This record gives sequence, C-alpha cells and structure tokens, in this order.
Amino acid sequence: MSTTIINKETLETFLELISGGDKHNGNNRYNAIVRKIVGDLCQTIEQFDVSDEEFWQAVNYINFLGEKKETALLAAGLGLEHFLDLRSDAKEKLAGELRGTPRTIEGPLYVANAPLSSGVTRMDDGDDTGEIMWLHGVIRDTEGQPVSGAVVDVWHANTLGNYSFFDQSQSAFNLRRRIITDEDGAYYARSILPSGYGCPPDGPTQQLLNLLGRHGNRPAHIHFFISAPGYKHLTTQINLSGDKYLWDDFAFATREELIADPIKISDPSLIKQRELPGNHTEVSFDFVLQPAQKHNEETPIKRPRVGEE
Amino acid sequence: MSTTIINKETLETFLELISGGDKHNGNNRYNAIVRKIVGDLCQTIEQFDVSDEEFWQAVNYINFLGEKKETALLAAGLGLEHFLDLRSDAKEKLAGELRGTPRTIEGPLYVANAPLSSGVTRMDDGDDTGEIMWLHGVIRDTEGQPVSGAVVDVWHANTLGNYSFFDQSQSAFNLRRRIITDEDGAYYARSILPSGYGCPPDGPTQQLLNLLGRHGNRPAHIHFFISAPGYKHLTTQINLSGDKYLWDDFAFATREELIADPIKISDPSLIKQRELPGNHTEVSFDFVLQPAQKHNEETPIKRPRVGEE
Repeated sequence: MSTTIINKETLETFLELISGGDKHNGNNRYNAIVRKIVGDLCQTIEQFDVSDEEFWQAVNYINFLGEKKETALLAAGLGLEHFLDLRSDAKEKLAGELRGTPRTIEGPLYVANAPLSSGVTRMDDGDDTGEIMWLHGVIRDTEGQPVSGAVVDVWHANTLGNYSFFDQSQSAFNLRRRIITDEDGAYYARSILPSGYGCPPDGPTQQLLNLLGRHGNRPAHIHFFISAPGYKHLTTQINLSGDKYLWDDFAFATREELIADPIKISDPSLIKQRELPGNHTEVSFDFVLQPAQKHNEETPIKRPRVGEE
Repeated sequence: MSTTIINKETLETFLELISGGDKHNGNNRYNAIVRKIVGDLCQTIEQFDVSDEEFWQAVNYINFLGEKKETALLAAGLGLEHFLDLRSDAKEKLAGELRGTPRTIEGPLYVANAPLSSGVTRMDDGDDTGEIMWLHGVIRDTEGQPVSGAVVDVWHANTLGNYSFFDQSQSAFNLRRRIITDEDGAYYARSILPSGYGCPPDGPTQQLLNLLGRHGNRPAHIHFFISAPGYKHLTTQINLSGDKYLWDDFAFATREELIADPIKISDPSLIKQRELPGNHTEVSFDFVLQPAQKHNEETPIKRPRVGEE
C-alpha cells in the first residue's frame, strides 16, 4: 500500500520551511506542532497513495465542517473529546488525587447563563408533551459531606433529541437550568424525559460516519456542570439505563459510574409532595466533587461556548 | 516533552472503534485513513501534552477556516498543495514519461467558464490603471510542434493583488480569459501587470501564519490551465522575475522553469502592431504539453471550483 516517493531529507527540509521553524520568528510550540501535524498528513498521503481528488475532497469537507460549525461534534464522534477525558483521568491517577464522580464529555451544545434557581426548578416550558421527569440528587464532597451552595448547571434534549438554542423551535433556555443546592446539598428539577440525540442527518459529521459505517446516535442523557468554591469543577453526564444506545454512544461518553435507573412513580403521596400533576419518572443521581488543587480547577476549561465571551 | 499516559493497547482498540473498523460496515479505505489520522492526532496530543484549551482552540480554528472557506488556501500555505505536485512529478519520473513544462499549484481562486476568444483577447476591463501587459507565447508538443486549438485558460490578480469574483469590486471575469491557440499554436492577450497576492489579513490562514512567524505573500504570477485533445492537461503558473517574493512564495509554487522576464517596450512599431495605446511590458512564455497516456489526463483533476458542478 505504501508508495513513498518523496525523499525523506527533502521532506524534512520542506517541513522546516512550512512550519516556519527556519525563521525563528514565531511561536516555537506552534512551529513544532504544525510541523508534526503536516508531516503526519504527508505520511498519510504517501502511505495510502491519496489521490489529488481525494485530497481536495477532504479540503472541501473541512470547509463544510466549519460552515456548519460541526468541528466539535466531529471531535466527539471521532472520540477525541473522550480521549481528552482519558488523559485527564490518567493525570489525576498519576497525581494520586481522590476520585469523585467521573467526568465525561461536555459535547458542543452547552449554552451559558441558563436561568438560576435555588434548590428546585422546572426546566421545561410545557410545550413538549413528553413524560414528566423528576430529577434530583445530592452533591457531596469526598468525605461524604453535602455541599450546599454548589451550582448544578443542567441541560438536556427534548423528546425529539433536540437542544434549545440550536433548535430554534424551542423557547429560550428550554431544558437548561442552573440550580443552587440547598443546605442538604440537594437539587431538584421537574422536567421531561429526554430522548437520545442524533447528529444532524445532512451534516458533515453524519456524512463521515456514514462512510465509516457508523451511526451518529447517543443514548438518552443529561448533561451537568457542577461547581462550588474549593472544589474541582465537574463536567459530566448521566445516562438513562434501558436505552438501546447505552453502550453504543457515537461520542463514547457512557461510563459505568454514570448510569441512572429511571423509576416509574405512581404513588399519590409522592406525586403530591413533588407538586406534580400525576405519574412520572424519577431520576435520582448524586455527585461527589473532588477538592480543587488549584484555583483555576474550580471553573470549566476554556472553550468557545454559546453565551460566553 | 512526551507524556504518554494512554496505554497503547487501549488506544488501538479505541481507534478500531472510532474508525468503524470493527463494524465492517463502511468503506475500508475511509476506515483505515481515519484511523491513521485520528491516531496521529492522539499521538500529537500526547507528545506535546496538548491541553484541553489548546485542543478546543484548534477545533474553533477549523470552524473559522471553514466559515471563511480558506481550507484550500491553508493547504497551499502549509505546502500540501506543493507536496501533491512533488508526488505527481515523482510518479511521472518513475513512469519514464516525457517532461513538458512543469506543473505548479492551482491555488483556490480559479473560476470556470471565463470568456472564450480565438488567438487574441483583452483580459482587463479598463478600470485598473495598472501598467499594460502584453502576454503571449506558443504551445508546443514535446517534439517542438505547435499545438493549435489548445485552450489557454489564464487568470491573474489586479494591481492590488485581488482576483475578480472573490473581489466583488471587480467586474465579472475581469482578468480571466480562455484563449484558443491559432494555427501557429500561439496565444496573445492584452492585460495589466498583476501584483503579488497576499492572504486576507484577518482570515484564518494569515492568523496561523502569524503564529508561525511566516508571511502570507506570493510573488506576482499568472495562472494557466492548458488543455488540448491528446495532451496531458497542464496546471501551472508563471512568475514575473524581479519580485521580492519570487523565491519566498508562501505557497511554495515558484519553479526555476516557470520564471518569465518582463520586458519594457517603447518601440512605436511594436506598439502599433499590437494595437496598444503606448509603452507596455511584454511577458512572453511558451509551454510544452506532454502526450496524454490516458483519456482522463486531458482534463484538470477534480476539485471543487467556482462555476463547476
């Protein structure tokens, strides 16, 4: 399969040139990383004898990817976002840090500054006739003590698997809320049961997945950002058990410790206590936050997000 | 610098999964190429201990690149388009094919279906007060015989280094023409002397070049597509000698055999013969076409182009 026709020395000189390494005029780290990435691409072209047509098809694909702003979605679909999680896990383990609830990918559909409530909230605007979900849990530290005043930033899809903002047919911040935990470290939310997400069927991510023979579906899940002063920010998700994609998430985010078992509730006293109109599904999930080692660990990593600078 | 923390076996299993190689349900070539590219990216992340912030900065950069449709420009600036030329050269050499005028990069600014003329044309619309250029030459085969009826598709920048269509301030097809060679294999065009091109200063390509400490300029040049039945399509450019960027093209397209020496003309008889209003600069360049080995070599390689399907 390999058709190496470019002299290795010629290539190295060329890579030095294209990365600006010879100029000593730029950022050394960028020089080195660009040299590595372009060198790898040249090697891929040689190894697979990539044709000019295939190369320009790939170039065009990247234009399409950017035009549709799906690069982050593709990064999730190609496992790179999960790979970053594996690296963060491994670094924590090497550092001997205490483990709280595991992280998992953020995904590209967060919107900052969702409405803020204390203790309890309702997340859905009532337009979606999905099954009522009663979502709740407690935030604790690694000693088992409740963390009151933590901000639980929750977002999830509707019954069609779509997210407000990105799906402009939903009201602003539908199914997106921030809840401050009460004195017992607890959060409570009335919402609707989310359905699994699927990649936009005509988008570039799904286009590549089709070529790879892969689907672009995620199991039903709920995203969480959990922050509290003194604690390491947690970016995670919980999956709802029983979903056919539970262990076949196209974004590789499912983790053993992050699966919730929804429970059907028809007990009239519980319905009344929760001020719900009737039967519902309860999803209960507690989280454990690690102590922050550094101040900047208290906030999520920087990445471009809707509603943030 | 290296911080390999992901187990190699874990990574290989993961790459099999993300590339869809385990599903045997897609295109094997895509499975293998995607596995290689993502594997290389994982290796780059590990080798340079790329942070989450840096990773998302890169993801965002690709969105920006696609939004501005600059992926092909970046591919030229990172030398990948030239690399494809080097590979095509090497393949021809291996095949022992006769060499004609060397190829060089097409660049991303071609527009198909420029106005067609026989033998002679005027390329500029008269709005640019640049120096008059008298461009001409002969197309020959490898035996030195003129090729009449060849289509010489020429495009170049104006005195600001901008290309019509992409620069909407210019008239449609300004400085873009197709000329059919006469019985002597000759083409003639009145135009204006082009200036060198510079990458859009606020665009993603220039942004990366800045970080690398590289400029984004090209020397003054003229693009050619030359086609004739029975001959291998030629995609090339000529550079005008004397330009400060002649051997410092950000797209690496300059070749020894592709440099034209512009000549100042003030001879009244030549001016009259060429029906020009006065003094001008003559740029003369002959091309040699190779015989086509296969029918599909008679046309340019497929890539997305303005004005083509």
